[in-house]
Amino acid sequence: MKAVQYRTVGGTPEVVEVPVPEPGPGQILLKVTAAGVCHSDIAVMSWTADQLPFPLPLTLGHEGAGIVEALGAGVRGITEGGTYAVYGPWGCGACPTCAQGKENYCPRAADLGIRPPGLGAPGALAEYMIVDDARHLVPLDGLDAVQSVPLTDAGLTPYHAVKGALPKLVPGSTAVVIGTGGLGHVAIQLLRALAPSRVVALDVTEEKLELAGQVGAHETLLSDEGAADEIRRITGGRGAEAVFDFVGASPTVAIATACAAVESDITIVGIGGGAALVGFGVTPYDAAVRAPYWGSRSELYEVLDLARSGAVDVHVETYGIDEAPQVYERLHEGRINGRAVILPHG
Amino acid sequence: MKAVQYRTVGGTPEVVEVPVPEPGPGQILLKVTAAGVCHSDIAVMSWTADQLPFPLPLTLGHEGAGIVEALGAGVRGITEGGTYAVYGPWGCGACPTCAQGKENYCPRAADLGIRPPGLGAPGALAEYMIVDDARHLVPLDGLDAVQSVPLTDAGLTPYHAVKGALPKLVPGSTAVVIGTGGLGHVAIQLLRALAPSRVVALDVTEEKLELAGQVGAHETLLSDEGAADEIRRITGGRGAEAVFDFVGASPTVAIATACAAVESDITIVGIGGGAALVGFGVTPYDAAVRAPYWGSRSELYEVLDLARSGAVDVHVETYGIDEAPQVYERLHEGRINGRAVILPHG
Amino acid sequence: MKAVQYRTVGGTPEVVEVPVPEPGPGQILLKVTAAGVCHSDIAVMSWTADQLPFPLPLTLGHEGAGIVEALGAGVRGITEGGTYAVYGPWGCGACPTCAQGKENYCPRAADLGIRPPGLGAPGALAEYMIVDDARHLVPLDGLDAVQSVPLTDAGLTPYHAVKGALPKLVPGSTAVVIGTGGLGHVAIQLLRALAPSRVVALDVTEEKLELAGQVGAHETLLSDEGAADEIRRITGGRGAEAVFDFVGASPTVAIATACAAVESDITIVGIGGGAALVGFGVTPYDAAVRAPYWGSRSELYEVLDLARSGAVDVHVETYGIDEAPQVYERLHEGRINGRAVILPHG
Amino acid sequence: MKAVQYRTVGGTPEVVEVPVPEPGPGQILLKVTAAGVCHSDIAVMSWTADQLPFPLPLTLGHEGAGIVEALGAGVRGITEGGTYAVYGPWGCGACPTCAQGKENYCPRAADLGIRPPGLGAPGALAEYMIVDDARHLVPLDGLDAVQSVPLTDAGLTPYHAVKGALPKLVPGSTAVVIGTGGLGHVAIQLLRALAPSRVVALDVTEEKLELAGQVGAHETLLSDEGAADEIRRITGGRGAEAVFDFVGASPTVAIATACAAVESDITIVGIGGGAALVGFGVTPYDAAVRAPYWGSRSELYEVLDLARSGAVDVHVETYGIDEAPQVYERLHEGRINGRAVILPHG
Repeated sequence: MKAVQYRTVGGTPEVVEVPVPEPGPGQILLKVTAAGVCHSDIAVMSWTADQLPFPLPLTLGHEGAGIVEALGAGVRGITEGGTYAVYGPWGCGACPTCAQGKENYCPRAADLGIRPPGLGAPGALAEYMIVDDARHLVPLDGLDAVQSVPLTDAGLTPYHAVKGALPKLVPGSTAVVIGTGGLGHVAIQLLRALAPSRVVALDVTEEKLELAGQVGAHETLLSDEGAADEIRRITGGRGAEAVFDFVGASPTVAIATACAAVESDITIVGIGGGAALVGFGVTPYDAAVRAPYWGSRSELYEVLDLARSGAVDVHVETYGIDEAPQVYERLHEGRINGRAVILPHG
Repeated sequence: MKAVQYRTVGGTPEVVEVPVPEPGPGQILLKVTAAGVCHSDIAVMSWTADQLPFPLPLTLGHEGAGIVEALGAGVRGITEGGTYAVYGPWGCGACPTCAQGKENYCPRAADLGIRPPGLGAPGALAEYMIVDDARHLVPLDGLDAVQSVPLTDAGLTPYHAVKGALPKLVPGSTAVVIGTGGLGHVAIQLLRALAPSRVVALDVTEEKLELAGQVGAHETLLSDEGAADEIRRITGGRGAEAVFDFVGASPTVAIATACAAVESDITIVGIGGGAALVGFGVTPYDAAVRAPYWGSRSELYEVLDLARSGAVDVHVETYGIDEAPQVYERLHEGRINGRAVILPHG
Repeated sequence: MKAVQYRTVGGTPEVVEVPVPEPGPGQILLKVTAAGVCHSDIAVMSWTADQLPFPLPLTLGHEGAGIVEALGAGVRGITEGGTYAVYGPWGCGACPTCAQGKENYCPRAADLGIRPPGLGAPGALAEYMIVDDARHLVPLDGLDAVQSVPLTDAGLTPYHAVKGALPKLVPGSTAVVIGTGGLGHVAIQLLRALAPSRVVALDVTEEKLELAGQVGAHETLLSDEGAADEIRRITGGRGAEAVFDFVGASPTVAIATACAAVESDITIVGIGGGAALVGFGVTPYDAAVRAPYWGSRSELYEVLDLARSGAVDVHVETYGIDEAPQVYERLHEGRINGRAVILPHG
Repeated sequence: MKAVQYRTVGGTPEVVEVPVPEPGPGQILLKVTAAGVCHSDIAVMSWTADQLPFPLPLTLGHEGAGIVEALGAGVRGITEGGTYAVYGPWGCGACPTCAQGKENYCPRAADLGIRPPGLGAPGALAEYMIVDDARHLVPLDGLDAVQSVPLTDAGLTPYHAVKGALPKLVPGSTAVVIGTGGLGHVAIQLLRALAPSRVVALDVTEEKLELAGQVGAHETLLSDEGAADEIRRITGGRGAEAVFDFVGASPTVAIATACAAVESDITIVGIGGGAALVGFGVTPYDAAVRAPYWGSRSELYEVLDLARSGAVDVHVETYGIDEAPQVYERLHEGRINGRAVILPHG
């Protein structure tokens, strides 16, 4: 079968021919019908050999969906021929953290050699992939695989961030989304579906802000040095009850803390290398700043349920598997609009 | 190997010889070193053939602990020779409910033919038992198997009940425990370890109340018709912020609602057949009444952690496997003090 | 000035002439521009002399809004000439319960002789009323007094009920509203604004269900004996994660518990005299049943903020103060559509 | 009467003679029987004229307790002759924030000229003080005024911090307290009373750590550069689920983030001028960092209830009012052991 692999440190992704894998006990063989291409792969491919926590070659792709082709011994509760999305941040499944479905935070995974597909284990950018356990498959149940595969990361990650802030998002509150691209434009939709708050979107160009308005932002602002003041002004001086920074660079993180209210939630999702300064007299009283990672298993069910109700619509561009290397290039150059999805079977 | 089975409807438990089972893919063979004997088995053995939701014969025992003897194909993260407790309320492990570890509430288990050990699947009252998945084993990690095996039900069930009420149990609050036997005397200890509340214990004899006082109840009361008034009196008219009824019979449920405060939590744990009347003008404003069942996977970790800190001590009587039928008789007659634990290997 | 009073036990409301009151220290004189007429007044006027917890005559009206006419000594933070809504369930303001704004549950109010306006203290059905403290006035801040005065009870009460259930109302969940009249039709709107759940509305006639659909219910059902089964069917057997019963009579309460899911919230708001039976094997596991009363001070701010965003629209009929006795008659006969509001100054 | 005043910028506190104030409408005259002396006064007295947000002279003291001497017009619910503690962080009492008792975060106070006693309004270091509203008095109800007056700040502030982290403090968790002085040694006691966690205390000398052990810390560590590693070691690599930094200087804040677990709460209480860096790859996933201020009204009730149960014991040194200037000196020099309390009436 064809697979898109990262084969040597510093190299570029290649389409190669590899054997179709066989599912071991408890495993599932998935015929991949849609696989998302994510910016974080580009970060991984920029690491040195020392930084890389897994051996090469690696089949890429941590957003996957498809049809169950075969079941390994002992698998229960999964329908052969059924369509599923793959929960990506695999953990041990047994420890107290995994026992709450928070496998994204499994403290044992590294020691046990468990890594997410496409980030250590063979990923979804292939005609077939192995899913290591039935619990990592979520039924699509009527959802289109192509439209919904980005929800496994570009939907789940902002969902987790937004869900954590919901208790603050009462009527009359304001939520700020910084960065309205892949994850940010989903976050705006999630906020509109889950909270009665006014949503203010920030980005660097009017063009990007146009999309933000289309997907539901009540107000849009250029994320320049006046942005925080403007947010404080339109909130009557109070600031925003929740701020989500999907860029995470120094200037956006500075805006995030500057525009936040007392007792607010500030969530840094973007991996832009910035960090917020938090302390007495530095940030508003009881404003809590955190940087999460991906989301939990039950949250993936919830984000797919939300999509099923029509509340979330990810802009998707589709490509064949042979185009994958070019897609990574386009993504790197900022030329993908929304989310790129590979159809390994055309 | 020897196993204690319920073989025919209306019969009594028998010690029989059965083959040692073999672990299938994903399963674990556990050498049982301790198995708790629970009142609810007696209820099960009183059901008619129509009521019984599983076929006979059934190896009893839903509280189990032991040493891993063998691993089925594909099992990861479990140490052969390691000592573990068994999480009993098995679910499918994959659905949104199980994805939060609440397998006790799995909506798919019945359809998939999944049942707890000792309550449909072969149980812990045998020399060996099959555990269906690594996630159902919790490392004892220094805890004594005999002392801690009752925590898998008699500890986990009150822990779940108490944990749900913790937000109400602020300083100055009062928690009432009705029924200070197997689960109740653990609940008192859990409340003392987890909350700053005054704990008031109710039971029908002074003798039982003596144990309640020994394990930490601040006040003890006979659960007669004056009990609710007395609780209201000692709380300055306000009532108790949390009430846990481990009897669940009509008179105790009546006390539970009568002694509760506005915005309190009333939890009916006992299966005594009673039911509370809840409504406007009937119960205090916003007093929430619920009847839970067992507990979640992460809660079992937590209750074992609490035992490890020395905060919970279950009174245990030990017996050999051949004595199991007599133990059920003694239990039925109210002649077991605390919890009976069978040692299948003597 | 004119006031609508309940003067003798068993009598009917009368329009009488009384002196304009003077605000004492800390009090505010409000020129009432809108006052809601509520069903619960009819219940109060059906009580015997023994049941009545306050002396007559009583100026009716516990939903009030108007313009600040004069400030008593020491009042701070209130603007003379400003427009405010009145928070009705007055408490002592100082105890731990009131310290969280939950004056509706103040345990000291009765002892201190503090009662809500229109329910012991002189109410809003008059040209002027005394508000006992600045904290009981919430700025309307651009909202229309006539349109929003019902929100102080018919909005706040369902808001409090819905807010308590929000953690259960995740994507994919179902909320059931039983009774789609005054409070129920607001509850439907609140649910749509605050949660991503499917909303199912139940009432006794297709006509009433039409309004339910217009204000946002996804599905409407006649509340007959098949209703609970139908809800279970459309939820895939699971039942509803939250049920709000705005009738509270025996048949509706029975539907409420019969259609609820494991771990659901069942809230009985209606004062129809029914009560739910709650217990092990009787209600779904961990389904919590409660009966709240009115709402908290910060919740009134939130419901008004929600109205300000356009998410809530109460159907209102307006009348002059001299028509008030006839309005109570019409209300009793079920001939008010939505909420009747009296304009004391015409 | 005598009062301890800060009279000129850059000056030292002086004992002066001023008239006994008269309570206006809604106000209460309190005969002060105990007033705590707090480090933060020293910070205030180091500010320049530009930094000082209120005029001089100022009667100091934001921790006060005493006996009600006289009631202003319209005061209800307060007993003349009764003993009360003063809730210090006065807000407007009416806004949505104050409506939840969080007057410490009132967004209107500054605009309305409302300031805490001793921090703008005349404070507790005097024979008598004015309390501006009945809601700012909490009955001592059997507690000794001298022993409990520090709880209004040195108790309430750590209580608020600890309460926010309680959901993380499940069995098996670890809480770290950095700085075991005035607030820190109370925090250790609060943690032991409210949570089942292991408590690890850090300070700069073995002598200070001795007190930490006496008041309940399970482990004590010198807060040197190896401290974070040691905490990670004793938590099996996981880190602490909650960290409370009562110093708030750069080195302690660095330890706080370095020793914290994934999904932990890090609370910076101390005003030592340090700030934490928070971001993706910088802090553990979902570790939330915040810097609160003082506490809410209902939390003061709770901390006093906890003291009433015997769970909190503040070490107190008492002095006469004429010694107050010397007490500030001793405090500045680090020569007060625990909390200094002035007895204005000897």
